[in-house]
This record gives sequence, C-alpha cells and structure tokens, in this order.
Amino acid sequence: MNTAEHTRVKAEAARRATRRLGFSEGEDRNRALEATAALLLERRKSILQANAADCQEASDLPIAVRQRMHLDDVKLMEMVRSLRAVAALPDPLGQVRLRRLLDEGLELTQITCPLGVLGVIFEARPDAAIQIGALAIKTGNASLLKGGRETARTHALLAELLREGLGAAGLPEDGIQVLEGREAVESLLDLPELVDLIIPRGSKDLVRYIQARTRIPVLGHADGICHIYLDASADPAMAVDLVRDAKLQYPAACNAVETLLVHREGEAALRAVAEDLRMLGAELRGCDTVREWLPWIAQATEADWGTEYSAPVLSVKVVETLDEAMAHIHTYGSGHTEAILTEDPAAAARFLAEVDAAGVYHNASTRFADGYRYGFGAEVGISTGRLHARGPVGLEGLVTGKYLLRGGGHRVVDYTGPEARPFLHRDIP
Amino acid sequence: MNTAEHTRVKAEAARRATRRLGFSEGEDRNRALEATAALLLERRKSILQANAADCQEASDLPIAVRQRMHLDDVKLMEMVRSLRAVAALPDPLGQVRLRRLLDEGLELTQITCPLGVLGVIFEARPDAAIQIGALAIKTGNASLLKGGRETARTHALLAELLREGLGAAGLPEDGIQVLEGREAVESLLDLPELVDLIIPRGSKDLVRYIQARTRIPVLGHADGICHIYLDASADPAMAVDLVRDAKLQYPAACNAVETLLVHREGEAALRAVAEDLRMLGAELRGCDTVREWLPWIAQATEADWGTEYSAPVLSVKVVETLDEAMAHIHTYGSGHTEAILTEDPAAAARFLAEVDAAGVYHNASTRFADGYRYGFGAEVGISTGRLHARGPVGLEGLVTGKYLLRGGGHRVVDYTGPEARPFLHRDIP
Repeated sequence: MNTAEHTRVKAEAARRATRRLGFSEGEDRNRALEATAALLLERRKSILQANAADCQEASDLPIAVRQRMHLDDVKLMEMVRSLRAVAALPDPLGQVRLRRLLDEGLELTQITCPLGVLGVIFEARPDAAIQIGALAIKTGNASLLKGGRETARTHALLAELLREGLGAAGLPEDGIQVLEGREAVESLLDLPELVDLIIPRGSKDLVRYIQARTRIPVLGHADGICHIYLDASADPAMAVDLVRDAKLQYPAACNAVETLLVHREGEAALRAVAEDLRMLGAELRGCDTVREWLPWIAQATEADWGTEYSAPVLSVKVVETLDEAMAHIHTYGSGHTEAILTEDPAAAARFLAEVDAAGVYHNASTRFADGYRYGFGAEVGISTGRLHARGPVGLEGLVTGKYLLRGGGHRVVDYTGPEARPFLHRDIP
Repeated sequence: MNTAEHTRVKAEAARRATRRLGFSEGEDRNRALEATAALLLERRKSILQANAADCQEASDLPIAVRQRMHLDDVKLMEMVRSLRAVAALPDPLGQVRLRRLLDEGLELTQITCPLGVLGVIFEARPDAAIQIGALAIKTGNASLLKGGRETARTHALLAELLREGLGAAGLPEDGIQVLEGREAVESLLDLPELVDLIIPRGSKDLVRYIQARTRIPVLGHADGICHIYLDASADPAMAVDLVRDAKLQYPAACNAVETLLVHREGEAALRAVAEDLRMLGAELRGCDTVREWLPWIAQATEADWGTEYSAPVLSVKVVETLDEAMAHIHTYGSGHTEAILTEDPAAAARFLAEVDAAGVYHNASTRFADGYRYGFGAEVGISTGRLHARGPVGLEGLVTGKYLLRGGGHRVVDYTGPEARPFLHRDIP
C-alpha cells in the first residue's frame, strides 16, 4: 500500500469508530481518559526512553524547540493531570440546546453530538498529543493525529496509550489513529468524504498552505496580528505593564501584540512604554510622528503594519482618533485579539462594540486569549475564522448538533394550506 | 469594468457596510424591515409590472417554475407579512452566550455578532429574495443576492426596496447588493477575502459545483436522500399516513422520503403503504424480497439506493434488523432527515441516539425538516454540513460570536509560573 492508500485505510477505520463513539456514554469516555492516565504512569520508563531517543536525534535544533520536545517526570505528571482534568469536565455530548413543543405530542429537541473525524496536525510536543487526543475522546470524535516528526517515537507511544485507554473502556481503539510523514498530511487533505475537520497547529505558512490546499473545513489561524490602542486617557503605568506583558511575556505566541497604536495626546504614555521596552531589549519601529517624539526609534515601513514578528519587536503608530485606530485594526489586523487601554468608558464601549475580532479587550493584556485562561479546560487551537468556532476552541468547538423530533404520527399536510393547523412552538425549559 | 471587477466593487461596498451594520441597533434593523414592507405596498404597481414582464418572457418554462416566479396581490401581502414577522423576532445580535468572571475585575463575555458578508444564490422566486434579504438585515449581515435570471427585473426592484429600507433606517444601503448573470457568480466565488459565507439554493448540481469550486465556506445541502424505517412494530395505519405525507405531499422537496426500509416482519404494513401509494399514482421499486411479497413492484437496482428522485418514486428495501436499517442509512443517506416508525420505545431510542443525520425522527413525517416548522421564523436553507449550522438554518446560523474581556490592567504574567495566581472562572448568570 502506498501512503495515500494507507491514510485512507486509517481514515476509514476512524470513520467506522465514530459510529460507536458517537453515542458512547460520557462515563465510558472518561474511563478511557483515566485509563490512559494510569498507563502513562505505568509505562513511564518506556515513554521517557522513546522521548530520549527522539531528543538525541534533535540535538541540532534550537533550544526552544528541544525544550518543547523534551519529556521529564514533571511534564509527564502534567500530562496525567491534564487527562484527569479533561475527564472531570462536564460531558459535552447529549446537551440539550433547544427543546420545543411544535404541537401537542410533537416535540423537537436539539442535542449536541460529535463532529465525526478530526485530522489534527500539530507541533513536536508530547503534551499536545495528549491534550488533543483527550479533547477528541471527550467529545466522542475519532481523530487522525499527525505530530511533528521530531518526536515521532514519543507521539506513536502516547497514541498507543490513548488507543489502549479507549479499549479498556470498551470503546473502539480505532478512534485514535497516528499519521506519519508529510506525505500522509497530503493524503489526509484529499479525504473530504472521510474527514470532517482539519485542525492545523504550527507556523502560519503551514496553516495557510493547508487552508489553500484542502476542501475540508479548517479550524485555526494563520496570522495573529494583534494591536493595543493607547487612548488619550490611558493610564501610563497600566500601559507600561500591559504592553510589556503583551509583547514580552511570550513574544512567539499568536496573541502577543505586534503593533501599538497611540492617540496623538498619548505622548507621555508612549514615552514610558517605549523606555520600558527598550530597557528590556525590545526593538521598536515607529511612524514619522513617533520618531519626532522619540528619535531613537527606527523607521517603520508599510510592511511593518502587516507583520507578525513572533519576536520582541513592536511597531508603533500615532493616530488622530479612535476611528483611525479602529480603521487601522480592520485594515491590518487578523481578527485575532485587539485591546484598548483607556479610562474613558465611552471610548471603551465603542471599541468593544465596533472592533471586529475574535477577542476585543479593555484594559487587559492580549495574552489572555487562550482556552485555559478562558476556563475551557483546554483548547485545540484559536480560530480566526468566523464560522462554527471563533476564538479559543475548547470542547464546544468540537461538537455539532442534531435535531430529534418525536411525534405520534404527525403529518406535514395537516399544517399546510388554508385549513392549516397552527404550530404551538412552545419552548420547554 | 468587467464582471469580475464589478463584482469585487460590490463586494467591497458590502464589506464596508458591515462596519456600520455590525454594531447597529436591533431597532434600526427592524425599522429597515418595516420600511421595506411599507415600500412593497407603496410600489405595488411597479413590482407587479416588473414581474409581469419577467413572466411574459418565461412563457416556455414549466408551469411549476412559472407559478413560483409569478407575483400577485396575495403573494405580495405574504411578503409584507414575512418582513414584519422577521422584524418581530428577538434581536439575534448582542445575545450573551457566556459570561464568566476570570478573576476579580476581569470579566469575559461572549456575545453574538454578524458573520459579515453573505453571498446568496437562489431560485427565480421573488419571495425568496425578500425572505433572504430580511434574514440578512435582521442579523446585521451585508449580502450579495444573485437570484434566478428568469425574475431578474423583479429581484432588482425588490432589492432596491430593501436598500431603500436600510437607508430609511439610517443604515448603509450598500448592505444589500444585487448580482446578475452566471459570470457574476463565478466572480463571487473568487472573493474569499471579502465574502464570509456562500448560501446556494437550487439544484444539487449547482450546490455541488459551488462546493467544489470555492474556498469560501458553503452552507446548504446538495442531496436530500431521506429514509423512513418501518420497524416490526410500526403501526400500519400510521405508516400509510406518514409515508404518503413524506413522499407525496411535495415530492420535489429535499425532505421528501426516497427510500422506505421495512423490517422483515413488516409485510402487512408494507402492503398497506404500497397499495396506498399505487392508488395515488406513485412508482415503487423494490428489492428481491419486496418483489416476492408484491410482484407488481418494479425491480430496484443499486443506483436506486443513492438516488434523490424529487418525484413520486419510492425505493423499498427489506432489512433483517434495526442495525441493518441504520447501516443502510449511513451508507446511502445524505445526513439530512431520517425517520423510524415504531411502537417499540427501545427501538426508537436506539434509532434517535445512533443515527447520524441533521434530523432524526420518531413517528413523524420527514417533511417537518424546515425552519418555519421548527419555529425559527424563516430559514435561509437546510445544512447537511456538520460545522457551524446543521439542519434548517434560521437567524442563529447567520451569526457568530466574539469574546469581550474587560479588565483593570490584568497581565498574563501574574497567572503564570510557580507563583501563579489562580483563575476564578466563576460563571455569572
């Protein structure tokens, strides 16, 4: 079998597993997660060995990548905890979204159910494999997991534990499938009839490539070009704190700020922010007005406004009005997370209402855009798409609904034409 | 300007209009609908004239098509009523979906907001233009409307009234745009950066073509291959009633039944159903066992199980078990609407839980799958996709959410690391 055939066989097995997973009890899915947690502890040694082999081959990679790849006892315990935390979340399936009496004896219910088969492409991070697998199992979805090749051994072993966990709970092990190699990703993207959703995590080039390449819906984001707007009335001390947090606490994150917009009356606040960032080693690039105020700042070019630096670099632009700030955000932003710092409630209210993005913040760091921080327990990613799920995506973004209608022989013809019987349409609490 | 440029200009105008529509008051959007209703009455004469001109040119078309195209005073009043009914629905925007205190002074809210720009391709039906335009305006979306060319004059005039209605309410008229001609559809599908959602209504070939042709998310359905399963314990009289309703009340509808599955013990019920349908002029095609029972029924071929007849034709198959019926449905069904007729609560419960479709019914006609009948006020279409909206799509399928975060200078760094401050994550009712 070539890779395409091999991938199709796995996708078909995953699809078959959905039939059973789709109506599984929440208790069984939780038992699968608990069983996997127990297996992680039981097989601790072989997991660390597999990971050590992966890491040994990766000695040429940058230290940040190797840190993410590396597993130790602390991280293993974190994975065990995260499996148990997902098990402890309320069952996302079978939730009633709507219950309505259409007529006497004719009851409509909308309940949540799984999406089906997920194809997840993620980084070389063992904890990601466990977190994604856990969310998929919790939501009754089957998944095809393709992790970064640098930790292929670790991922294969962890996926095996997730499969064993499913088996231990009487659920189909085929609900978890492992894909390996770039070619398998290509084959996966060609299976719209078998795969319901692709979740790509990683570089924006990867995400953009996948979005352009497949007909399967893609959940995620390519760019994270986030702005902070310092309004005229922004508190300078808060501005220093929040811009530092949003830019430097984790510059590579998608929710880090890339451009600071400053109201013309905000020179003093900008001065404090800029000095703080300079002291901490960040690079600033400013528009002409910024450079009049602070000549040590480098000149920003048009390209800067559309750049996600993923590094301690910040572009800075002076605007005349709140409207100009919002227009800039709508022109250059990626619809991820946008913040205003202001003491003026009217400006805050306008910004929150009018800015079009997955997250719009007032006096808070853009770095809060995250499923864990939002209280979703975990996340599979952050969506800048507008359909289905927008913003950090937890369990709710991995389910869909189906309508159940229970009648007693009800016919449409009786509700049609001049003598039509009227509907009740009475919601049941 | 060529068609592609012309379409882009209109899409850009629609996109600009979303900025204002996106945070418009529900009252203003309702005023736009009321104003359009008033204009429909005021311009009654010119509308009927435009429609008469359309209909004159269409004299070669089938009677059913001409009936749908044709406008008279009764239909005009129906359109007025439908505009007012949509205006009377609760505001779908600004609804709070989640409200959660992340920490003292740090409040997360998820509110509903418009999708943005809709591209709607619909039949030569004046009432569809009004209904779709009304739903788009109610949800604060801008829309590009491409109706069937046979009623181009009528659609252009009705869209003009929707635009005037927007203007009368102080909202941007550019929120409604009219596209004409096949080439404009092609251009529309090439604008993923300007159009958020395509809603194609019409033939399955059209829908399939559009799904395969564009990178813009498509909401709708190509096939409607719906089944009714007559369980061993089905009530024969109810079976006659419901199969007649589901097959013959409107055979061209997507929610009409195409295949009847019959339990091996259901010969008597099938006999009653088949005689009833034969008497009413329907054509039946059966599997071998069906033909042993009722030799007058024609032989079904493999192709029949995957065919949406859109005509008074029904395929019939005998199955040994509920499981075989469900397996057949999952193999040949289109995930639209599936029904079981049974007096056995256990069989009904299994069918409702295990069948994977947008609608799963017990003892009710498949023809109930419809936004109006579900109490959504109106619908833009029925989705067999699993993401975003599934089943009949009313106002809720035309909105998305955005997260608002209101803080007092909250930084992520304080919630990170060994000394991390814990989150509260306390839901606010």
